[in-house]
Amino acid sequence: MNIGILGLGLIGGSLGWDLRLSGHHILGVSRRQSTCSRAIALGCVDEVSVNMSLLSRAEVVFICTPIGLIVPTIELLIPHLPKNTVVTDVGSVKAPIVEGITPLWDNFIGGHPMAGTADSGIEAAQKNLFRDNPYVLTPTTTTPPHAIAILEEIVGSLGARLYYSDPSVHDYAVSWISHLPVMVSSSLISACLGEVNPNILELAQSLASSGFRDTSRVGGGNPELGVMMAKYNRTALLRSLSQYRQSLDDTINLIQSENWDLLKEKLQQNNEARPKFVK
Amino acid sequence: MNIGILGLGLIGGSLGWDLRLSGHHILGVSRRQSTCSRAIALGCVDEVSVNMSLLSRAEVVFICTPIGLIVPTIELLIPHLPKNTVVTDVGSVKAPIVEGITPLWDNFIGGHPMAGTADSGIEAAQKNLFRDNPYVLTPTTTTPPHAIAILEEIVGSLGARLYYSDPSVHDYAVSWISHLPVMVSSSLISACLGEVNPNILELAQSLASSGFRDTSRVGGGNPELGVMMAKYNRTALLRSLSQYRQSLDDTINLIQSENWDLLKEKLQQNNEARPKFVK
Repeated sequence: MNIGILGLGLIGGSLGWDLRLSGHHILGVSRRQSTCSRAIALGCVDEVSVNMSLLSRAEVVFICTPIGLIVPTIELLIPHLPKNTVVTDVGSVKAPIVEGITPLWDNFIGGHPMAGTADSGIEAAQKNLFRDNPYVLTPTTTTPPHAIAILEEIVGSLGARLYYSDPSVHDYAVSWISHLPVMVSSSLISACLGEVNPNILELAQSLASSGFRDTSRVGGGNPELGVMMAKYNRTALLRSLSQYRQSLDDTINLIQSENWDLLKEKLQQNNEARPKFVK
Repeated sequence: MNIGILGLGLIGGSLGWDLRLSGHHILGVSRRQSTCSRAIALGCVDEVSVNMSLLSRAEVVFICTPIGLIVPTIELLIPHLPKNTVVTDVGSVKAPIVEGITPLWDNFIGGHPMAGTADSGIEAAQKNLFRDNPYVLTPTTTTPPHAIAILEEIVGSLGARLYYSDPSVHDYAVSWISHLPVMVSSSLISACLGEVNPNILELAQSLASSGFRDTSRVGGGNPELGVMMAKYNRTALLRSLSQYRQSLDDTINLIQSENWDLLKEKLQQNNEARPKFVK
């Protein structure tokens, strides 16, 4: 199959690599000539161009741009595509993208491969990035069955775990397990920086170890990514943050009132519930 | 030197092991005969007893019981000790212990080796547990210099990084980097469990990966340990929690008001500040 990939970063480059090794013919498009050259040199694509017209021969196109560019990119791409081309994206928020593209292109199906590394760009691309990781597809009632079938086959060939979800259910789910943790973790670092006694702050910095390292990791990550999450998944994230604030207040009240039995019960529930999220 | 260890769990057992290998003679005391037998078999102690009177020959005694038992244990131990015996403890909160013991025993110096594993008990004891990890000593103005000197030498022989601190500065510092993260992380798990839409909760559990794993780790840990932190470091922890709640509210307000520039600035500050705590 001719598969187009628009946006040759970590996700686009890794997708091209795996699909090419599965026997597909990969057409890559990047805005930068230097990225095009690297993609060819690494073996992520068969043909490459800075011009979207290359994708007129693609049967399926993956849009792998940063999330804010997905809808504008598809608007520019449409004039180049035959009507039966299946278009999908890899954005980490789905409802606004699905709502934006569905009226423009019949053969669209939203997708979210949940894989990544701390690095980005074509140099960070790797083989088998998606293997054993979740890949969510978010078809709607109007998504053509053959578009779903094609994506299902491709996701299967990547070795990913396929999930189907309503776009907004997806967005609420990722707000809990991906976007809320970033804000919770970031607020931890900010709070510590608010310590006004320099002796306490200095000792805290010297003593911090694995507990602080893990809890602060995602909050100390890429600022642009954090803002994107908040901007594009604002409604779901605010809902999660509001529930989190209530949960934090409950904890504070239990400690304030020295209700150790109930605090222990709550910590016990969390201890038992965590393995339902992570093994 | 004859060194006594009262309480043969992860910390007591590991201390005995290292100090014995440094050439000291280790006298171990545990309430349970089965623990005494294991400590001998593993090589953590030279002599062992369920009876505190064994420690009458010790020049230094480490109290390695759970935190709530430290002061009562020392009260029971005192009648067995010559007046010049140096007593120290390994509790993770210092001000209440130092305040409780200073009036009872002149040669006391509080200590906190910051090392551990997810496991506990004598079977979890390991060699070199303290190497390259922080070890805080909390002498007061009345602590005899020779007690400080003896502990300084022992901590050095363990290969630990030695810090001196006022007991309450220590407690505020560990509330930031150890106890607050537990409550922040625990509240994250509780908040997710509050999701009322079963489709969202089920998908969230399926999609959770490294971000959720790290941010929820300490909050899903040992419930007894979490309650102990809150109970014995309540004042400092409530102060940290109050500052954290303010920091969380700031984040929520920035997202609510779509102030992406300020949110990015805050995330950038955290990104730059985190390496001051963890490398």
